[in-house]
Amino acid sequence: MTVREGETLSVLNQQVGGGWIEAQNSRGQTGLVPVDYLQVCLSTCLSYLSVVMMMVMMMTMLMMMMVMMMLMMMVMKVMMMMKVCSTAGFEDDDGDDDDGEWDDDWDEGSMEGHAPGATGDGEGGMGEVGPVWLYPQSPLDCEVTDPKKGSKMYGLKSYIEYQVIPTSTQRPVNHRYKHFDWLYERLLEKFGSAIAIPGLPDKQVTGRFEEQFIRGRMERLQGWMRRMCRHPVVCQSHVFTLFLTYQDQKEWKLGKRRAERDVAVGQMIFSLMDPEAPEMDSVEKYEQYSRFTKAMDDGVKELLGVGQTHWKRCTGPLPKEYQRIGEAFINLSTVFSSSGYQGESTLTDALTSAGTIYQEVAEIVAEQPKRDLHFLLETNREYKGLLGCFPETLAVHKAAIEKVKDGDKMVAAGRISTQEKTTMKQRLSCMSYSLQAEMNHFHSNRIYDYNRVMQLYLEGQVKFYEEVPL
Amino acid sequence: MTVREGETLSVLNQQVGGGWIEAQNSRGQTGLVPVDYLQVCLSTCLSYLSVVMMMVMMMTMLMMMMVMMMLMMMVMKVMMMMKVCSTAGFEDDDGDDDDGEWDDDWDEGSMEGHAPGATGDGEGGMGEVGPVWLYPQSPLDCEVTDPKKGSKMYGLKSYIEYQVIPTSTQRPVNHRYKHFDWLYERLLEKFGSAIAIPGLPDKQVTGRFEEQFIRGRMERLQGWMRRMCRHPVVCQSHVFTLFLTYQDQKEWKLGKRRAERDVAVGQMIFSLMDPEAPEMDSVEKYEQYSRFTKAMDDGVKELLGVGQTHWKRCTGPLPKEYQRIGEAFINLSTVFSSSGYQGESTLTDALTSAGTIYQEVAEIVAEQPKRDLHFLLETNREYKGLLGCFPETLAVHKAAIEKVKDGDKMVAAGRISTQEKTTMKQRLSCMSYSLQAEMNHFHSNRIYDYNRVMQLYLEGQVKFYEEVPL
Repeated sequence: MTVREGETLSVLNQQVGGGWIEAQNSRGQTGLVPVDYLQVCLSTCLSYLSVVMMMVMMMTMLMMMMVMMMLMMMVMKVMMMMKVCSTAGFEDDDGDDDDGEWDDDWDEGSMEGHAPGATGDGEGGMGEVGPVWLYPQSPLDCEVTDPKKGSKMYGLKSYIEYQVIPTSTQRPVNHRYKHFDWLYERLLEKFGSAIAIPGLPDKQVTGRFEEQFIRGRMERLQGWMRRMCRHPVVCQSHVFTLFLTYQDQKEWKLGKRRAERDVAVGQMIFSLMDPEAPEMDSVEKYEQYSRFTKAMDDGVKELLGVGQTHWKRCTGPLPKEYQRIGEAFINLSTVFSSSGYQGESTLTDALTSAGTIYQEVAEIVAEQPKRDLHFLLETNREYKGLLGCFPETLAVHKAAIEKVKDGDKMVAAGRISTQEKTTMKQRLSCMSYSLQAEMNHFHSNRIYDYNRVMQLYLEGQVKFYEEVPL
Repeated sequence: MTVREGETLSVLNQQVGGGWIEAQNSRGQTGLVPVDYLQVCLSTCLSYLSVVMMMVMMMTMLMMMMVMMMLMMMVMKVMMMMKVCSTAGFEDDDGDDDDGEWDDDWDEGSMEGHAPGATGDGEGGMGEVGPVWLYPQSPLDCEVTDPKKGSKMYGLKSYIEYQVIPTSTQRPVNHRYKHFDWLYERLLEKFGSAIAIPGLPDKQVTGRFEEQFIRGRMERLQGWMRRMCRHPVVCQSHVFTLFLTYQDQKEWKLGKRRAERDVAVGQMIFSLMDPEAPEMDSVEKYEQYSRFTKAMDDGVKELLGVGQTHWKRCTGPLPKEYQRIGEAFINLSTVFSSSGYQGESTLTDALTSAGTIYQEVAEIVAEQPKRDLHFLLETNREYKGLLGCFPETLAVHKAAIEKVKDGDKMVAAGRISTQEKTTMKQRLSCMSYSLQAEMNHFHSNRIYDYNRVMQLYLEGQVKFYEEVPL
């Protein structure tokens, strides 16, 4: 092997003996070189060590940035396509039954017009998945925004008022939390037997004017409102339309009074439905739905439980630990600097930069849950709320099944007429269509929501492991 | 814009109306396209979503592998160079004072020959850093290995015996823990006033035959032995040589008895040193060393504290949480699969693979501390042990300083002679050389050890963040 002056060699074996060292030059040639020709010094090695550390860090970061850019490009493409999909998907649900009509009269005392298909034109259709609600031509959505402190009674009583902006009118209306609560009560009373009406975010008395609380509540109110907007029956109901589009206080108050006097509530809702389809036995479906909603409820609660534990750890003790590790490295670096011993600046620099990196890691770790886990938890909280509605809906259904089962005995015992038995059976069939439409609505939303939340969560996690500057 | 059949377009705006959609083709051209010409289907989108997720994961893993390979290549290079450095570094410490000689006689009762420089040829030298011990021509090292269960008294008493193999003879000798403890007691008694003799790993009565305990103890005994081998005064002492190279039980027992009768112990050690150099005042150095060792002791304990907490979290609750998150995803996937609803296999596949990934992350997280944090903690534990020796050494020194300070008064009071005062001063000067040599030994080892441990720890961490399959 030939060696030139100034050339750097990699030492392969020092133990050759006789004043020779086995080495490799940059062209890959190996051979023996006289020790005296080689200069190996500690400082070069040490600075080389730190250079390697810096290079490793920088390379890692560079790679990360490349991956992130590619990721973002892909995400944008997916978003585009998702947008098309979601619209297409929801239109498809409607199938061919798209000439249904909603009765828009709201005469006091009338029991018609508050539920789908009251005019007999069919409230939904039979898609590939079975019965579905009739979805409106253009989907409704809304924004809850701009929380403002208001006051009443010459400032004695203060409250927070939110702006609610529906996509239908684009005109903001103001509502306080108690109005949302009122709306919830009306929807629950009217549709609760057939439709999952999840509860509002918890009431809270202390700290309810703190910014973080207000933001959190607003976010959840918006989540709740958007879910209600997505429900084809709820979004087309009078009370919901009133809440979103009232023109002035007079209309709001009048509408409120009317809604409170509405008697077409509870199980009455099924009397207003007419699926105009053959009678259907629902026991099997009922049992499938019972099992499914119970199992999903367990699954969601499990995920929420561990997610909340993980949240606490990731925002509390874990970053505190990284912070303390960082501090410990930096402290040790300071101590070492004070040794008075020569030639350890490479070591103290490495310790300081490791310490600084750990403090950055602490921050990234602490902030990360807000970026990905938050949405995963919020979505699962929403679903916990939705799933909490099914036991009631299913119990109503179960009672009707039992009643029909006993129908023949009751007729034989002369306790009901044959006509009454037939009506009971028809009603159960109607309830079965309703239950299936509601479950199919739930499933299609569930698939959409969980696809989205998993996508965002995993993207967030990928970004996290890329951002860690190690 | 021209559109060909089979071409894929990105939708920019669906709301153009009139049956047109604004889109962009792969060449970047944008324009309006009739809706009827476009085919957008849900399943394509959903499978695209999962493909993106898979691609993101695979790309990330690919990048990681590239980085790891580069890293490994670099690390190998560094190791080569470090090897050269470490040897060079330690040889340099010796400076030009390499003709020192050790008295190898060990006559009973003789007070000579058990300490450096007893023959007057100089026990060390003055390097760039000040006084240094005289380092042996070839460094000593040893291996503690192959723990075997032995028994005595017809099997009534059992014990673990380790093989100790010194590089000097390459011949293994057997020792039980209690022999190491005996060696420690001898070294502490003989050199404790001048040299940091760290304690052995803790004794433990319960579970001392469990494999994990035996491995851990062996590793720490080896760490302790190697540190003692690296100390130029200890490694050349008779008792240490006896421990490493005794030929048979007779020699061992005879040597033990001799060592136990050795009277050149404690502060006597300083009488055996003669730095053959000008007298030196040591108050300033003493104070600097006091401050430094105290500060480093605090720093090391801080790092150990947070490191142990971090260890527990990383091997306990954190991976358990990842495991549970993984399980929750997989459970949810199973529940979703049972929905009976069509077209959610993409979602359930994504959930299952996310779940599996989290379970892998759990394992990686749980195993990681053994790969990097372990060595960081072990090294700091060793240094905690070493630093624990300095208060004693420094107190001996402090007492000598005080005594010399009072020297004039004592002479005036007729309590000591002028000759005695001069001897005291000479002795303090000798102690000062010894202290500085010991501190310089400590510093050079400290820089070497912490460079190494930081390098290994950071490499371990880099690998960890690269291995996480997200």
